[in-house]
This record gives sequence, structure tokens and C-alpha cells, in this order.
Amino acid sequence: MLELIWKNLEKADELFIPGLSIDCVIIGFDGEQLKVLLLKWKGADAWTLPGGFVLKDEDLDTAAKKITYLRTHLKNLFLTQFEIFGRVSRNKLDPKIELDIPNLFKLPARLESWLAQRFITIGYLSLVKIADVNPKPDVFSEECAWFALDEIPTLVFDHQDIIDSALDRLRKQLNFLPVGKNLLPEKFTFPQLQKLYESILRQPLDRGNFQRKILKLDILERLEKLKEGKAHKAPYLYRFNQKKYQQKIEQGIGFL
Amino acid sequence: MLELIWKNLEKADELFIPGLSIDCVIIGFDGEQLKVLLLKWKGADAWTLPGGFVLKDEDLDTAAKKITYLRTHLKNLFLTQFEIFGRVSRNKLDPKIELDIPNLFKLPARLESWLAQRFITIGYLSLVKIADVNPKPDVFSEECAWFALDEIPTLVFDHQDIIDSALDRLRKQLNFLPVGKNLLPEKFTFPQLQKLYESILRQPLDRGNFQRKILKLDILERLEKLKEGKAHKAPYLYRFNQKKYQQKIEQGIGFL
Repeated sequence: MLELIWKNLEKADELFIPGLSIDCVIIGFDGEQLKVLLLKWKGADAWTLPGGFVLKDEDLDTAAKKITYLRTHLKNLFLTQFEIFGRVSRNKLDPKIELDIPNLFKLPARLESWLAQRFITIGYLSLVKIADVNPKPDVFSEECAWFALDEIPTLVFDHQDIIDSALDRLRKQLNFLPVGKNLLPEKFTFPQLQKLYESILRQPLDRGNFQRKILKLDILERLEKLKEGKAHKAPYLYRFNQKKYQQKIEQGIGFL
Repeated sequence: MLELIWKNLEKADELFIPGLSIDCVIIGFDGEQLKVLLLKWKGADAWTLPGGFVLKDEDLDTAAKKITYLRTHLKNLFLTQFEIFGRVSRNKLDPKIELDIPNLFKLPARLESWLAQRFITIGYLSLVKIADVNPKPDVFSEECAWFALDEIPTLVFDHQDIIDSALDRLRKQLNFLPVGKNLLPEKFTFPQLQKLYESILRQPLDRGNFQRKILKLDILERLEKLKEGKAHKAPYLYRFNQKKYQQKIEQGIGFL
């Protein structure tokens, strides 16, 4: 399967929709902060979002799934399109980044003009549990790694703008995205849930207010106490009631 | 300016990005219900969203502005991209609609295959005050008219899906879109504001709760009473405090 993308890329001008790409912002949460999954191109000091092209007869969502799998080995991701990026010169490389893409990927010279054309890219947002996945770099990349949002290295093209926009959308659609369910472990404490919301909203939240609002939603099931520290101080673990959670996400979770 | 689109269309294959279009869902509110602006193609019984193509060296937002102006004569619209539609066969015509597009628009035969290729379209949402605008059909259209959402005629391609998706986005981003400011007249009553929110959320809202939530936001200025009916029963008029309104929209208006 991974070999396929090599073969496809050599015939990119025949197989793919010209001037259209997909870039995926894969977001995880490590219990303390949000992280984003990035790839480092082989033989170049350049980090990028996992991205790729769309076959001429392929639906966009199918392409997004395939691209994330081919480039990071992650399967069955929750993926939702969030914005299309079409500034005229968006795929011009920053002159600080020295990169000869066709050479780097050993592509036929014929493809130089195909790759240099104006590209419009569709941004997809994905939310994953960091502890549950095992991302690996694809054949074009030498690393695939999680970065805290304030430690993102210099990225190619407008990929930093794409990440910023994904985080903005995450905040604005917080009530309708399965944020808690997709980013937290199955069992979590109230402080973990609050930290997640604080990371997305980028502001501290009042503990009492937050707890009251969340409990009012009636989407949590209380479990045993966390087995850590002194038993009488240990916080309770919770999990989402899947059915109620799903209903609330569809109606708008009414948290914001 | 309107002539330009004719000339451009004859050279569509040279001038425009292949396979990419923009369609605009222009939403208004008449005090009672939401309406959408549609065009009827000349010489065919087919209604469409105002749409068009993107020049090879044109930013997407610039193209969206130009397209709405060229096709409906509306200027300076609030426009925001909401989704990209890319199902493989989305621009196949419903066989129930008999339409020969190149012939209809008197286009060179050369363009037949250009028009028949797979098109991906970017949906833009616009919110306008119906009473303040005077839409007119363009050279391709014989009518340009507002339709209540439950009276939309059969539309070409997937334009009904595009409208449904725009309304869904309007509901989900209600807290971050200038809904009240763009859809209501400058001065409005509380019942009008409530009706607008009810139309978007498609559910009745409790009057007391709604009033309390909105007043707590501190974005309204109370004006004189509406000069209608018996003076002691007349409702007060309100307007938005522009500065506070803008701040709240950026933070999330916290209504939902």
C-alpha cells in the first residue's frame, strides 16, 4: 500500500486532480497540552503537515482517510474538513527553506511544472488519543512526531496558518465536535477534562462553574476513584455515556 | 463589468482554475423567516445558487465577492467560506432537468468538455438585510428571487445539499457569526430577535430565558418604543452596541 503512493506520484499529472491537495491537522492531547502530528521530509530540514493529492475519481473524504494512513500509518481517524486555503501564492516555498522537491522525491523532471502550479489545499482536522496510536513516517519522511503548540518548528508553505485555523475552528465548534470523547483516555478525572477545555479555549476556567456546567449536561458516568496518592484525596474517574454524549454533540453541547 | 463575464466564459479553459467553482448561499431574514437568494437560468426551468469560477491568479475570497456582484448585483457582502463540496459526481445534472448548458449560454463547442469535467465547489455563506438590498439577475438569468426555506424549487446539481449545509453551519457557528447584526434591521424589537434565533435553531425558545441570556451579554442599547398599536403595549426598540457586539462575536457570544 505504501509503495502505491510512489508509483502514483510518478504519474501525478495523469492521476490526480490538478492544483488540489489535502493537508491534515492531527490533534492529540497528552493530559497537559494539545499536540499536533508533523512529518519531517527525508534529506531536508523541513517539517510539514501530512498531506497529499486527490485521485480524479475519488471523493474528498476518502482521499483524506487514505492520505493520513499512507503518510502516518494511522487508520480510522475522525476527520472533518474545516477550511480551504487558496491564497494565490500559498505554495511558494519560504526562501529560507532550501528544497528541491522533485529531486528530493526522485520524481521525473516532467512533473516539475505540475508541482509548481498553484495549489489549493483542503484542511482536514483530526482528533486522536495520543496514547492509543503509533504514528510512523512514510517513505518520504524521516520522522513523524508530536509537537506541543508552542514548540512547532518552522513549517513549509502556509502550514502554520493551516494549524492556526484548525485550532480556531476547534474552539468555535467546540460544542459540536467530539473533543472529550476523542482526545481523553476512556476514563478520566474532572481536572483532566477541565485542562482539555482550557487548552482549547486558551484561558483558565473557574473550577466550580465548569463542574456545574458539565454535570448539568448529564453525559458523565462516575466510576471508581483514581488509584494514586492518598485514597481520601484521590479524584474520581469518569467516562462518557456514549449515547447521551452523541445526542448532545449533535444538538450542541451547550458548554461555551 | 457584467459584459466581462461573457468574454471570460468564452475563454474559460484559459482563464479559470480547472475543476473549481464557488457557490454562494446568500441568506436573508424578512422578520418572520429565513430566505435564500436564487437565480433562474434564462431559457430553462432551472434554479441555481449564484456561482462562478476562479481566475488562475485570483484569491478565493476576491473571486467570491466578484461572483456575487456579477451574478446578483449585490456589493460589499459579508461572505465566509463554510464547506467544500467534492462528491465525485456532484456536478452531473439531474436527468429530470433538461439542460444543454453550452448551448444555453451560447458557448464555443470547445468548452463542452471543460464544463463537463469534475468540479469541486467552495460554498460561501452570506448574511444580508433583505430590505436594504436590491438583487438583480445577471445576463445568464431571467430571475433573481428570495425563497423561504420550505419553498425552494428544484435546484440543479447538489445545490440543495449546499444550502442545507450552509444552514447547519449557521446553526453551529451561531455564537461566532454576526447573525443579529447582519440579518435584522438596525432597530429591532425583542420578539424579532427571538424569532431570528428560533428560525436558525429551528425550535421555539422560552421567552424569559432568551431575554435573560441576551440581556446578560450586555450588547443591546434600548431605544424608544415602536410606534405601532397601543402605546402602553408597544414593545421597545433596540439596537446593537457595535463595539460590544464585535467583541462578543470574536469571543463567542455564549448564547447557545
